[in-house]
Amino acid sequence: MLSRNSLNFSGGPGALPETVLAQVQQAIIEVPEVGLSVLGISHRSDWFASIVRELENNIRLLLNLGENYHVLFLQGGATQQFSMIPMTFLHGNTRPAEYLQTGYWSGKALPQAQREGPVKVVWSGESSGFSRLPRNEELNLSEDAAYLHYVSNETVEGLQFHRVLGNDSAPRICDMSSDLLSKPCEAERFALIYAHAQKNIGPAGVTLVIIRDSLLANARSDLPEFLNYRTQINAHSNYNTPPVFAIYVVLLVTRWLINDIGGLEQMDLLNRQKAERLYAMLDSSQGFYQARVEPHDRSLMNVCFNLPTPAIERQFLEGAEAAGLSGLKGHRSIGGIRASLYNALTLEAVDRLVDFMFDFQQRSKQ
Amino acid sequence: MLSRNSLNFSGGPGALPETVLAQVQQAIIEVPEVGLSVLGISHRSDWFASIVRELENNIRLLLNLGENYHVLFLQGGATQQFSMIPMTFLHGNTRPAEYLQTGYWSGKALPQAQREGPVKVVWSGESSGFSRLPRNEELNLSEDAAYLHYVSNETVEGLQFHRVLGNDSAPRICDMSSDLLSKPCEAERFALIYAHAQKNIGPAGVTLVIIRDSLLANARSDLPEFLNYRTQINAHSNYNTPPVFAIYVVLLVTRWLINDIGGLEQMDLLNRQKAERLYAMLDSSQGFYQARVEPHDRSLMNVCFNLPTPAIERQFLEGAEAAGLSGLKGHRSIGGIRASLYNALTLEAVDRLVDFMFDFQQRSKQ
Repeated sequence: MLSRNSLNFSGGPGALPETVLAQVQQAIIEVPEVGLSVLGISHRSDWFASIVRELENNIRLLLNLGENYHVLFLQGGATQQFSMIPMTFLHGNTRPAEYLQTGYWSGKALPQAQREGPVKVVWSGESSGFSRLPRNEELNLSEDAAYLHYVSNETVEGLQFHRVLGNDSAPRICDMSSDLLSKPCEAERFALIYAHAQKNIGPAGVTLVIIRDSLLANARSDLPEFLNYRTQINAHSNYNTPPVFAIYVVLLVTRWLINDIGGLEQMDLLNRQKAERLYAMLDSSQGFYQARVEPHDRSLMNVCFNLPTPAIERQFLEGAEAAGLSGLKGHRSIGGIRASLYNALTLEAVDRLVDFMFDFQQRSKQ
Repeated sequence: MLSRNSLNFSGGPGALPETVLAQVQQAIIEVPEVGLSVLGISHRSDWFASIVRELENNIRLLLNLGENYHVLFLQGGATQQFSMIPMTFLHGNTRPAEYLQTGYWSGKALPQAQREGPVKVVWSGESSGFSRLPRNEELNLSEDAAYLHYVSNETVEGLQFHRVLGNDSAPRICDMSSDLLSKPCEAERFALIYAHAQKNIGPAGVTLVIIRDSLLANARSDLPEFLNYRTQINAHSNYNTPPVFAIYVVLLVTRWLINDIGGLEQMDLLNRQKAERLYAMLDSSQGFYQARVEPHDRSLMNVCFNLPTPAIERQFLEGAEAAGLSGLKGHRSIGGIRASLYNALTLEAVDRLVDFMFDFQQRSKQ
């Protein structure tokens, strides 16, 4: 019997593993090694210092990060990074930063960069309705850009890059909010990676930022302390009170990834199985379920599709909800259906969705 | 039998009411009205919109706020407000903002304001070791300051203003991080009030900001969106993914304040009883327990004191920990003992501490 939590296909905040939820539930009353509620433990305690240390080590282990990388846990979401990055690395620069506009979220990052310095949009999918991603030969990237910025997985449209973009001479900066820790990502090829937690990593309220030390040589130093990456690095993410609870939950998720799943290669295998099963359902539906994007650029995280009419889509969502399958409504900006298959969602849950979709299509024919 | 959580005297993050913890524990697996974990519910759901609406109404009710005030739930803590306030209301201004330096936290706010515009320090307690607060006659406040900024309760030193400062012609801005919702506070006399949650209001990770609409007429409009109060107001604190969990816990705390406690007057009565009992213990100890600050300015939230020697203080802390009384170590910047008596700490817990202190003093005499 699958619980409602395990059938949550929400685009984010997404579901967390059931074994993690059970540990969190315990920690609300008592963290075993402390004897106090996780909500009432000081961020200056030895316990919390050990939590941050273990979490940082787990991230380094999972992503094969060298000592030349800093691992930070900040507040403000990816949205704050949309601004902090150009405030720090573009402001006052004469060389433009190069941005890809591949969907809703990369489009949100763009104006926040443009207000800080020169920006060159090297490719936009707007005219094609964000139904595909660029091929390498469509990208004319400069070797001395301030940096290259792109979004690895567009959550709203269901587009995902299955390769690393750009050349090594310009720093790569990537918003991996919706696929970090879902697979190996060649992290050492990036100068800066950021990801809010609420897809694969933990609850809303904490954002993971990974920075290569050499990038900081070009960092502006006159920003307010809370916007200064160096201040946060020197304080081990504890410059001011961090979101203790959210960080603790992220630690539990990384333990689950390492100990229960067996690392990111294993996680990737599972995630591929899930996505393949669902895309196979779409492809065999004879056009009843229409995938939104080109096959080459399909996301393993967010499977977006349409049904023949908006009225049938509404029936589909009502029927799914009644069957215990929640969170399937597409993003408010484009509508349709979106099934998010983040790490915590199981293969069994995908099977349940596929069964429902098969039945729904059969019923619709009658 | 008092649990360890109920005997947590931590300076913050502080303990939460046991009835709130029980509800949070339930919500980790299933929010009753939704059937999903609170950690996996979309911030764009109808449920979350209703949570924010109810919470905003509860804050308005508890503080008697008129419609001319906006109520925001932001990230980044009081530390982010130390910068956001002068970035928004002081930057480019020729009239100075007036700041009081009454202890550790007001001292942290000061340099972040100084980097944005002209600041006049109207009083500093530094030379007196932050052992007292100014009398009105010591404050020479101007009528046309950009704003007046002060901290209502200095958590580290245990100093609290028991009155509203300043004149009505200059906007009052107050950091109430450690006493908001512990008592009525004449909120309508302030142009802006801010408080991180982790003392009386909820877990670390969310910050309450209350702004009078007329103050926004002077707000700078060219800041990045995430630092723009208007953007957050227009989006009802949902411009980008807010810390859903922390906001939900704050709602539960306000329900507890309204329904279980009976409002802020009742909360104040309880908090006064707690503090009076502990200060009476200090005052009757014939100098064994030495209160840090002058009686007139004693905090009801943080009771700070010293014992005859640092060695005896270490024994005291060890003995307290062994007796289940936790979080009594003073702030790392000044040492000593600090008993924080935030809303969730009960009179019974204070009695337990007083009993321990009495016994400890007796044993020390032998």
